Amino acid sequence: MRIGVFDSGIGGLTVLRALREAVPGHDLLYLGDTARIPYGTRSPITVVRYSLRVASYLVDEGVEALVVACNTATAHALPALRQAADTLGIPVFGVVEPGVNAALAARRGGAIAVLGTPGTITAGSYQRAIAARDPSIPVFAVPCPMFVPLVEEGWTDGQVPLLIAETYLGALRGKADVAILGCTHYPLLVSTLAEVLPGTVLVDSARATAAAVLEALGPGDGAGTVEYRVTDNVERFREVGSRFLGYAPDPVSWVDIGPASPPFIEP
Amino acid sequence: MRIGVFDSGIGGLTVLRALREAVPGHDLLYLGDTARIPYGTRSPITVVRYSLRVASYLVDEGVEALVVACNTATAHALPALRQAADTLGIPVFGVVEPGVNAALAARRGGAIAVLGTPGTITAGSYQRAIAARDPSIPVFAVPCPMFVPLVEEGWTDGQVPLLIAETYLGALRGKADVAILGCTHYPLLVSTLAEVLPGTVLVDSARATAAAVLEALGPGDGAGTVEYRVTDNVERFREVGSRFLGYAPDPVSWVDIGPASPPFIEP
Repeated sequence: MRIGVFDSGIGGLTVLRALREAVPGHDLLYLGDTARIPYGTRSPITVVRYSLRVASYLVDEGVEALVVACNTATAHALPALRQAADTLGIPVFGVVEPGVNAALAARRGGAIAVLGTPGTITAGSYQRAIAARDPSIPVFAVPCPMFVPLVEEGWTDGQVPLLIAETYLGALRGKADVAILGCTHYPLLVSTLAEVLPGTVLVDSARATAAAVLEALGPGDGAGTVEYRVTDNVERFREVGSRFLGYAPDPVSWVDIGPASPPFIEP
Repeated sequence: MRIGVFDSGIGGLTVLRALREAVPGHDLLYLGDTARIPYGTRSPITVVRYSLRVASYLVDEGVEALVVACNTATAHALPALRQAADTLGIPVFGVVEPGVNAALAARRGGAIAVLGTPGTITAGSYQRAIAARDPSIPVFAVPCPMFVPLVEEGWTDGQVPLLIAETYLGALRGKADVAILGCTHYPLLVSTLAEVLPGTVLVDSARATAAAVLEALGPGDGAGTVEYRVTDNVERFREVGSRFLGYAPDPVSWVDIGPASPPFIEP
């Protein structure tokens, strides 16, 4: 089966990497919408428009399942994407539910922390998903705006990331059983985060999402090809992508997916 | 006279603030192309396309002069913008030349440092502009990728910005007469930068650009209205913009400037 993996840019590569391990027999087509990055600071209606455009492109390219490897797109656009894909019988996986399920499984009766970009924390999708399962669970939702630029610069170890992580998360130490890494970039900071939050289980949404895909679609029985497409700047994707994958993404090509639909749909 | 001030997002507000002081009698129309931010990581041809679209919008809105308050757009698109605007008799000001002129005036025979985003430093427009004036001047060009996210988060003082600035610039201490703040965000970090680079004159490109506009157009004799338009997310512009201006930008409205021209122009 050909699975489309969609992110606003590069972060979704942590999900792709987890998928390669979990479902090695499926073909993966990764689309990084780098021409419109970052989704995180855009308005929800814009994120829905962009996400529908990407999904439409991937469906035209023949994908039979869609993984939304982007927290912002999952938070704002998952219902719209599922509604559109359902009519085609295409399953759509987001990163929020699997992360929440993994956190609930790892919890030992205490609080759950959600670490994310300001956009993800404000959108509140992790908080709502936890409350829907058990509204009595205490949730600490912590925006960590500097983590994405740190990871994209490859600055994941040492004094600076440690000081920034301590500033955001020091007050949380000893107070949460589990912390959901609610941004696809954060798994690269795991050693720093483990130092700041000793005794807290760190849940990697990327791995949790890959596990959900394996459960639904099986490991696949094909050759397991991987292809990368971006809507801008192939070189930067190769360079920064190498930090996420541990090897250079290849082959990468530039594609024009066309403009998104207008912002307001006439009645 | 109505002057269009154009940036990919919010950083150009430091230029707008300087223009309000320098040319209080001209009307300013600020356009933040937040739907397509950040320009800095995009390919040069994409930056040219986006810049031409914005300029075309501003000309349609009746501006009689254009200030490109964005280092990336200045680096990649200034020749194309000048070519397009020249036919209409509209002067176009970039931020690079005024910054270089101010640095040359402040220099005491030693080296000039250029601090900028990775995109600006790689584009090399400051380095070329200095070499064009005097190729014997030693230039240190230093990419400072974390400065923009620090400023946008309002994290401009304290241990974290100081440690990051020290990491980027510590080796430069005592080695440059002048440092050009080659990014519109950097003036907000001036106290931190002065601490890391004592004895180095910090040249604010925003103020230098405003001085160049004053010299060319005079202070104006009108009421000096200011209006802000953005292509996405009015709320975020208001919030982050307040950090740049010291007051909330007002009035701000959302505009659809239409799609940019296709990336490849057919012969």
